[in-house]
Amino acid sequence: MNNKKAVILSSGGLDSTTIMAIALSEGYDIYSLSFRYGQRHFFELEAAQRVANVLGAKEHLILNIDLKIIGGSALTDDIDVPKDRSAAEMQQEVPVTYVPARNTIFLSYALAWAEVLGVSDIFIGVNALDYSGYPDCRPEYIDAFEKMSNLATKAAIEGKTKTRIRTPLIHMTKAEIIRKGIGLGVDYRMTHSCYDPSLEGKACGQCDSCILRRKGFREAGVTDPIEYVSREA
Amino acid sequence: MNNKKAVILSSGGLDSTTIMAIALSEGYDIYSLSFRYGQRHFFELEAAQRVANVLGAKEHLILNIDLKIIGGSALTDDIDVPKDRSAAEMQQEVPVTYVPARNTIFLSYALAWAEVLGVSDIFIGVNALDYSGYPDCRPEYIDAFEKMSNLATKAAIEGKTKTRIRTPLIHMTKAEIIRKGIGLGVDYRMTHSCYDPSLEGKACGQCDSCILRRKGFREAGVTDPIEYVSREA
Repeated sequence: MNNKKAVILSSGGLDSTTIMAIALSEGYDIYSLSFRYGQRHFFELEAAQRVANVLGAKEHLILNIDLKIIGGSALTDDIDVPKDRSAAEMQQEVPVTYVPARNTIFLSYALAWAEVLGVSDIFIGVNALDYSGYPDCRPEYIDAFEKMSNLATKAAIEGKTKTRIRTPLIHMTKAEIIRKGIGLGVDYRMTHSCYDPSLEGKACGQCDSCILRRKGFREAGVTDPIEYVSREA
Repeated sequence: MNNKKAVILSSGGLDSTTIMAIALSEGYDIYSLSFRYGQRHFFELEAAQRVANVLGAKEHLILNIDLKIIGGSALTDDIDVPKDRSAAEMQQEVPVTYVPARNTIFLSYALAWAEVLGVSDIFIGVNALDYSGYPDCRPEYIDAFEKMSNLATKAAIEGKTKTRIRTPLIHMTKAEIIRKGIGLGVDYRMTHSCYDPSLEGKACGQCDSCILRRKGFREAGVTDPIEYVSREA
């Protein structure tokens, strides 16, 4: 086994946990990166730490960043998270849970850390199918970020690394992602996906993220191991 | 006068102060953005605030970001800042003052704030001539970042804004920049360029940034109004 390393953007959710398992299965040592970015709760950061521990990340870094000051999102501001939306409604427009330029900021930090570590491969769990209408989850965006990365760093212009933004989930349905993860032995009990959990951290079951997750488990024919505040409709 | 707005990346240095004056002369309202990123001193943040006040920025935002944790630079780590290097030495390789992916991270935040403000134009004072060998100051990098930006945001995909990364200094010599600024009435006394100032904030006169600045003033035939610890050689 050679010592391949990868930086993994981890939110402690279903998608990023699956990409971490995929990277491990490909023989990478894992350097996982999470952000305290002014989100309304820290359950996802706890989940990201748990996932890093369970899957055996070599290092897990949590960066404090100031997206709340910039504002413009239900995930950082006092704007209500939308509930009980249909798949059609989710696709209609970019939702208020969109955080301005979030993936660009996250990937930029990943690029910086990757350069310091001497890493070429950055994994991000974006998904263009069962997604929630975010512009920075689309393949054309990822391609443009990768091109920019290869002009941005000392490591790139000195020919030491060629950055690859790896998006193994980008064309998969949520059900396919779940089956893939279960095939790799992922216990999804340790993950957290909800935008608006209860005070004890239970998933609401009604935000876009919960709805997509539940639909995924249903379609995969697997029971979602986490607890929800509300029963499934 | 229409109400054009621009986000300006400001370090309180000579270049970013000049671009702010240029943006003002083009009729933009200024939203300036600086970063507390783990640099070894805060004189540049004080200078950036001073410049924003003097030039009349509508808003000046200082974001706390965690580049020190990522490391890899003399500007954030305990690595000596190189002194008394010749122009040829500066061009030979990317120096230890390079901060991994810094402009990418800075521009990503600028993009986020621009989206929230409804702004298309982001000004950055990069320079490809009298520069210090940084990859993320080159025109091809800036072009790639702009392309990526126009795929990254809700504002872009909804056709509300078309992001332009404006680099008015990119092909100018330091002397030309200084003449341009003086023509626009900039008082460079309020700026701070030094990587390694004295405890009272006096410029060292020997780091790459001081050397390039002094050379620029000399070639422009203008006296640099700031104080230096060391006399000019």
